[in-house]
Amino acid sequence: MVPHPLRALSLEETKTARDVILSLHKDVVVDFREIYLQEPAKEGMKQFLDLEHSLRLSPTSKRPPRLAKCQYDIVGSDRIPEYHESIVDIDVKKRVKHEIIGKERQASLTLWEFQILIEACKKSKMFQNAIAEFKLLDGFELVVEPWPYGGLDFGAENRRYFQGLCFAQDTRNGNADSNFYAYPLPLIPILDAHKKEIVRIDRLATGGKGDSLTGKTHSERIIDHCQPAEYVPELLKNGTRKDVKPINITQPEGPSFKVTDESLVEWQKWRFRVSFNPREGAVIHDIHYDGRSVMYRLSISEMTVPYADPRPPFHRKQAFDFGDGGAGNCANNLSLGCDCLGVIKYFDGVVIESDGEPRVHPNVICLHEQDNGIGWKHTNWRTGRAVVTRYRELVVQFIITLANYEYVFAYKFDQAGGITVEVRATGIVSVVSIDVGKTSSYGNVVSGGVLAQNHQHIFCVRSDPAIDGHKNTVLHEESHTAPWDKVTNPNGNFYEIRKTVINKSTGLDAAPQHNRVIKIVNPNKKNPISGNPVGYKFTPPPTQKLLATPGSIQAQRALFTNHHVWVTKYRDNELYAAGRFTLQSQLEIDGVAEMAKRNDDVTNEDVVLWSVFGLTHNPRVEDWPVMPVDIFQLNFRPADFFSANPAIDVPSTKNTSSVLVEKNDCCAGKQKL
Amino acid sequence: MVPHPLRALSLEETKTARDVILSLHKDVVVDFREIYLQEPAKEGMKQFLDLEHSLRLSPTSKRPPRLAKCQYDIVGSDRIPEYHESIVDIDVKKRVKHEIIGKERQASLTLWEFQILIEACKKSKMFQNAIAEFKLLDGFELVVEPWPYGGLDFGAENRRYFQGLCFAQDTRNGNADSNFYAYPLPLIPILDAHKKEIVRIDRLATGGKGDSLTGKTHSERIIDHCQPAEYVPELLKNGTRKDVKPINITQPEGPSFKVTDESLVEWQKWRFRVSFNPREGAVIHDIHYDGRSVMYRLSISEMTVPYADPRPPFHRKQAFDFGDGGAGNCANNLSLGCDCLGVIKYFDGVVIESDGEPRVHPNVICLHEQDNGIGWKHTNWRTGRAVVTRYRELVVQFIITLANYEYVFAYKFDQAGGITVEVRATGIVSVVSIDVGKTSSYGNVVSGGVLAQNHQHIFCVRSDPAIDGHKNTVLHEESHTAPWDKVTNPNGNFYEIRKTVINKSTGLDAAPQHNRVIKIVNPNKKNPISGNPVGYKFTPPPTQKLLATPGSIQAQRALFTNHHVWVTKYRDNELYAAGRFTLQSQLEIDGVAEMAKRNDDVTNEDVVLWSVFGLTHNPRVEDWPVMPVDIFQLNFRPADFFSANPAIDVPSTKNTSSVLVEKNDCCAGKQKL
Repeated sequence: MVPHPLRALSLEETKTARDVILSLHKDVVVDFREIYLQEPAKEGMKQFLDLEHSLRLSPTSKRPPRLAKCQYDIVGSDRIPEYHESIVDIDVKKRVKHEIIGKERQASLTLWEFQILIEACKKSKMFQNAIAEFKLLDGFELVVEPWPYGGLDFGAENRRYFQGLCFAQDTRNGNADSNFYAYPLPLIPILDAHKKEIVRIDRLATGGKGDSLTGKTHSERIIDHCQPAEYVPELLKNGTRKDVKPINITQPEGPSFKVTDESLVEWQKWRFRVSFNPREGAVIHDIHYDGRSVMYRLSISEMTVPYADPRPPFHRKQAFDFGDGGAGNCANNLSLGCDCLGVIKYFDGVVIESDGEPRVHPNVICLHEQDNGIGWKHTNWRTGRAVVTRYRELVVQFIITLANYEYVFAYKFDQAGGITVEVRATGIVSVVSIDVGKTSSYGNVVSGGVLAQNHQHIFCVRSDPAIDGHKNTVLHEESHTAPWDKVTNPNGNFYEIRKTVINKSTGLDAAPQHNRVIKIVNPNKKNPISGNPVGYKFTPPPTQKLLATPGSIQAQRALFTNHHVWVTKYRDNELYAAGRFTLQSQLEIDGVAEMAKRNDDVTNEDVVLWSVFGLTHNPRVEDWPVMPVDIFQLNFRPADFFSANPAIDVPSTKNTSSVLVEKNDCCAGKQKL
Repeated sequence: MVPHPLRALSLEETKTARDVILSLHKDVVVDFREIYLQEPAKEGMKQFLDLEHSLRLSPTSKRPPRLAKCQYDIVGSDRIPEYHESIVDIDVKKRVKHEIIGKERQASLTLWEFQILIEACKKSKMFQNAIAEFKLLDGFELVVEPWPYGGLDFGAENRRYFQGLCFAQDTRNGNADSNFYAYPLPLIPILDAHKKEIVRIDRLATGGKGDSLTGKTHSERIIDHCQPAEYVPELLKNGTRKDVKPINITQPEGPSFKVTDESLVEWQKWRFRVSFNPREGAVIHDIHYDGRSVMYRLSISEMTVPYADPRPPFHRKQAFDFGDGGAGNCANNLSLGCDCLGVIKYFDGVVIESDGEPRVHPNVICLHEQDNGIGWKHTNWRTGRAVVTRYRELVVQFIITLANYEYVFAYKFDQAGGITVEVRATGIVSVVSIDVGKTSSYGNVVSGGVLAQNHQHIFCVRSDPAIDGHKNTVLHEESHTAPWDKVTNPNGNFYEIRKTVINKSTGLDAAPQHNRVIKIVNPNKKNPISGNPVGYKFTPPPTQKLLATPGSIQAQRALFTNHHVWVTKYRDNELYAAGRFTLQSQLEIDGVAEMAKRNDDVTNEDVVLWSVFGLTHNPRVEDWPVMPVDIFQLNFRPADFFSANPAIDVPSTKNTSSVLVEKNDCCAGKQKL
């Protein structure tokens, strides 16, 4: 059976691609980084999807070629790796594109490179001597946590670096999951990844308010005033709470969704495809509702997490979790009854080892339905008749772990035609040492000797709409107070709706004071009821933009954070808001800011929207040791796309499993229940 | 047993109060409006609660008196009702306060007044003649929907008016719940409530873009181009969808909460009281977590819904759903398995008839637990060990119906110390006639001949914090870009946190561009970890403020909408953001704007916070005939109140009821699952 063009590469296809690459690079070492589907060019894909949706697809129909994007280092006799990207046509087993990436760009990191850092630390005399300066308590052992190096300083040579954050782990409890983040050590070894050597140790300031940005103030016994901060249940001093009784979610008739071809999801008039790749994690394709096209592609494109502690080298704490390490690579293998409840369908991914050998990355995406309270309700107060429906959602979820931190990403589809992209931030906040008794302007003391530094998380969701077709127009709609006017506003209650069409590719901002709503419409098709063009809308979350000083490395490499919304004209392969190569970047190159600068016509064109939102996270003590989720949502809603509320036909069935509390269950007292 | 001082009045107490009032007004007719608990003055209550929480309460302890607030009209021989408010001490059966409200204020409306409008329409020749101008199709019958009159025009005599929105109902299907809103008629009868007569008929413009604000353009057959818009399932043309399989939520071990004394709720270290009154609906009192005080009182204080259609008399469409009609009066009687799922505890309310006879208003509040996805998670990538907990919430919910529209209000408590106030807007949008084929700048055509007018919903949540005691301080915290500085910001990554203490009572606004967060702290108690004062925080939702022209009646009577946040110094009986009397008001009197103007010291004082947020609702076709919920949240979160994440001891128990999809359940295709 021929795979659907949007389906992720199978193990076999991945192997084929690997073999083609190996056959082309014979007398050298090939260290593979990634192999994954190179999605078809849109023109060919549009033709294919037209056939598919009109049920005219036949075995002889023209199909876009199955292409594999292969990323790898070639290590020649000089032992300096050279980074290549190739595209292999799987069907004909041929390379169709080959690009040697120059020295100016760094490939995304892989987990095997993290291992190099760990090994190099063990071998480095310089590092061992530095560590020996600290008197660790008996039973404490060193943990090195590899991080990307952040942006290269101006003028620095663009070698490939990694940095290691150092902690001590209390091993006396014999539990490998004892929380070492509670014992930070104030030094950072720097790896030259090509030399595989620690080339420098950065010493960290540990002072507080009033202390200088550099200079040692800490004693060699700095972790003595740290305290345990355990989160694994068997290490909690008082155990877990005993009064949480189970909430069971069962679906006795099975789920309401259908999954075929391991990628095609059908649920409640929705139909879309799910794929998975190492950079973006779960991606949603070809979204239709009731046979009508809504979006061509929906993905989380990028995020950046800059830290605000001005003391060098903390300015290099700035991750691009999609571009640097790959959200798909970092995706959790999800677990039944923990990460989601009910009847669950999991999707596997395929990842590769450095020898290019593919393996299944199991349960990287979960799919399930959930109840989210009341969906719509109306009571006729004359008759007392209430009609109430539930808000049922279908959730495509993946979760990534990046060293200390986690993100839960979900695409949620609802019965009223809405699509919500949700991000939950959780995990352990990034911390550094602080001297006993001090406080800081750069973060909050969340545990003895532990400073959680102020930082931001800024996300970018890329949506490639196809509202009843690929030619769409973007406009923003605002509501404005109108002046008194005897004729047009005699009582002062009128407010004016202003619509502004976005004619050229650009960036624009949220404007909650004007209730600015972004609409994506198909100017060629009118709603039969309202006469307005059919469309979808979203309100850009007016979250704070990047705070780093304009012109700083942190700001320059994340130009995508300069606006809440970008509107660009579609081009194949433009998927990444901060550009293809973010690792160690000093400047965002080929990112969305550049795409927007082309000044393309974007009315009645194939447009792409990029929504940027996030949080300024100045940690609370309550974020320690693992922070409760902070939840962010981007809501796409139909706006005159349908002829009525599409959820009006949801049955208002009474759920028969709900019961009244029984008196002996929960309630006591002298009064009747 | 003596009722707790915060418990709502029982049937018996209500009767006692009624009888005291009747005994004091003998030779007149007394038309009762409301009788409900006059909450104790705070000073006495503080002493009582101190005893209660320190377990020193004894039968001889001093208790605040049980007081009833009684609202009623006295109808003397001149037949013009005079509105009175009295406070009755239940224990001693004595009136302790009596206030005759002047003519300048209007009492809240009651449902029996709505009935007067209906009857007056039937009796009014003028109205019957006006209706006869329309040629209704056979089988269509008139429906008059009573509304408050909105703000009195400048210079108008302050008589008591009601207005009726007119619709035709298709009775041919024999279903009393056939949706009459689909057939609006362009006239509004005006009732003089004291005379009980229709005194005027307002004719409504029905034109579109380019038409004047007044003047008739419609034909007598205006509803001929209207279409059915049914939502009750038995009237749906194609029935309800068949593919929604049940999601059952069961709690085999019962709920985790405990309710005693019909008002005291204990759940997961939370402890608070729930009461119900006709104006505010459900109110939460005396909120503690793990024995520590968080809030004295939390309530929805007010909301206003101004309509933006400038054509007179639509400027009078402006409801204050709490002050005008009473959220408690309009509360739905909730239904098991429909309005919430799982194990449900319902609370009843007590309301009165016009003769003062109390009756139980059953199931006006529901209490239940729910699962809201992942609560916190961390995976140790070295060992692969994931610890993941669920986000369990306890929900206190009530739902109100105001003619066409509904709001679902919920107070949600979570295991991480957070309190969320949630509003869901649903129901049927308010509509008026529009001529066939026209469109309008004042709203959207959502069905043939039906214009859904642009409007806003602006809510005010009142929180009376008591962070580890009643003396609290409010500050706002912002994050700001810092300039380059060789010494303090050498790499440009630093951002500065600015804290500003609110010294005097005032209004202030959301500032998302600066990540403005409002913190309520107890300046007398420091967090032992961070050294910061213990506190709670919330981010003011930066939603659009009232759009009506400054100085207009709509704006003047809703001055509370001028700011996103108000900080005032506590005074007894100051509960209502738009003042005690909103019905027909021309100006907000004794509302929060006045309270703030006192310029009270509010540092280390008993402070009250008022959070104003809402939505500008320019209707979509998808909002018809019943709109999918639009969801708004205000999130109170601990900020250095605790010494760690209070949910860290939530067990990471795997839910055993979750299952994998089975192939024949949902999935097909040639590929392995």
